[in-house]
Amino acid sequence: MLTKERIAEEFKLLQDDICGKLEAEDGGTFHEDLWSRPGGGGGRTRILTGNHIEKGGVNFSAVHGPMPEKISSKLGLPSLDFFATGVSIVLHPKNPNVPIIHMNVRYFEMDNGTWWFGGGIDLTPHYITPEVAREFHMKLKATCDKHNPSYYPEFKKWADDYFFIKHRKETRGIGGIFFDRLSGTEGETKESRFAYVLDVGNTFCPIYIPFLQNLKELPFTPKQKEWQSIRRGRYVEFNLVWDKGTKFGLDTDGRTESILMSLPANASWVYSHQTEAGSPEAYTLEHLKKGIDWLS
Amino acid sequence: MLTKERIAEEFKLLQDDICGKLEAEDGGTFHEDLWSRPGGGGGRTRILTGNHIEKGGVNFSAVHGPMPEKISSKLGLPSLDFFATGVSIVLHPKNPNVPIIHMNVRYFEMDNGTWWFGGGIDLTPHYITPEVAREFHMKLKATCDKHNPSYYPEFKKWADDYFFIKHRKETRGIGGIFFDRLSGTEGETKESRFAYVLDVGNTFCPIYIPFLQNLKELPFTPKQKEWQSIRRGRYVEFNLVWDKGTKFGLDTDGRTESILMSLPANASWVYSHQTEAGSPEAYTLEHLKKGIDWLS
Repeated sequence: MLTKERIAEEFKLLQDDICGKLEAEDGGTFHEDLWSRPGGGGGRTRILTGNHIEKGGVNFSAVHGPMPEKISSKLGLPSLDFFATGVSIVLHPKNPNVPIIHMNVRYFEMDNGTWWFGGGIDLTPHYITPEVAREFHMKLKATCDKHNPSYYPEFKKWADDYFFIKHRKETRGIGGIFFDRLSGTEGETKESRFAYVLDVGNTFCPIYIPFLQNLKELPFTPKQKEWQSIRRGRYVEFNLVWDKGTKFGLDTDGRTESILMSLPANASWVYSHQTEAGSPEAYTLEHLKKGIDWLS
Repeated sequence: MLTKERIAEEFKLLQDDICGKLEAEDGGTFHEDLWSRPGGGGGRTRILTGNHIEKGGVNFSAVHGPMPEKISSKLGLPSLDFFATGVSIVLHPKNPNVPIIHMNVRYFEMDNGTWWFGGGIDLTPHYITPEVAREFHMKLKATCDKHNPSYYPEFKKWADDYFFIKHRKETRGIGGIFFDRLSGTEGETKESRFAYVLDVGNTFCPIYIPFLQNLKELPFTPKQKEWQSIRRGRYVEFNLVWDKGTKFGLDTDGRTESILMSLPANASWVYSHQTEAGSPEAYTLEHLKKGIDWLS
């Protein structure tokens, strides 16, 4: 039987696996903080200040207890005992040619038997190239298609809508997949949903490690570092203004340092920044749009 | 009679006066963008990238028209024609010994005769010193006391509560004054409220110009610049996560570049940053608390 303990255990193994592979590629070592939650449960926050990953976090948590009223009213749920576990990743690379990546897989259940999975992977290249975008979306589609042919088109659209910086009318990056509240509906079971979610987690390294390998040694200019810093500013804007997970965590007394590991080592804001026509920066801005089919 | 046109005109003069004095002290020149709002009205956004002010904005706007449903429901107001005008300032200095400052004065009215003023000034020193804090609060109290003895204690507390970074359990800085929805109650009239609000606006330069004069040439170390950048990160967190004005503007299709002029040229995030016991940085952190009486 697929218990919550088993799911949390698999998520821990996923965290270990990803951390090990990132350390092998980067050469740096994760710093680990173990923490416990006053209401029940805790987590393993792992932070990498590496050779190629300037600032990255690969976090596991499994928390439980009576659901605080503030949370149940926000989620529109009864105030029962709950259990939530997940792995969250954000990596900010040094080299502006390497994209920023985010991944999350999570499981939630309540004492009344309600359960669901959520998660996603999205990529934020400082410089968009069709090759990287195609590679990224192909691998996501392959993982999705192994489980359900409706997953990729549905969750790709969901990511476009979710990772959108409304006040800039820009997507955060080139999207990816996003899904939430996947439960035992439409012929799916807890086992089949979990198999998919774990597969998404296991797609992280085959996607990101090659990007890191192939792009981390590319030369770059100070101008490209400035552009990276401006794009990081947009990442900060998305996470602090629009990201529901971040807002939820900060609003409900989550562990601030674990939640805000997603923020870059530094970011810039330039009033009314303009790109040069025909530049790679302008190309990137023109492609921060919803609804682009990166596979065609 | 005190018309909305007259109030907007006085706010424009206030913007001119402040920009002139800041240019004289800094040696730099404001860049101005005039903009108009599709629904009615517009503004004058003025940005300084100066010799001592690294990034600053002194904005005027006066907007009007039918109130968008999204706004009336947020404010809990009937959906009538509205008029809103104000001056907003945020200055991020280069030298970490010079504090960040924010000021806002605003007037709002509706077609049904409802009107109110709001505003405030608050100071965010990268390094708190009792001298600067005392000077700042003394000048605010003097301005408040000229109008109403209850203003300073009441609006000082309001600022402590408003400029609070809940997820850090830190105030943004050393507070100041904050007030909203000041209308024709408690023996006050539109004229007396406006006299107070204009006086707050006119207190900005006598407060900030001496800080700039006295502190801008102080030597500083790279370590102090790093600390400044971390404190700027907290400023970004407050503005994007908690500031009601910023959220309201971004949520209701305000002019993004004008709203986000409040963000610094750059900011840093360090996982679980620690200060050294007994250091000026630790002193500052220990004083980012509500309820400190800076005058005693």
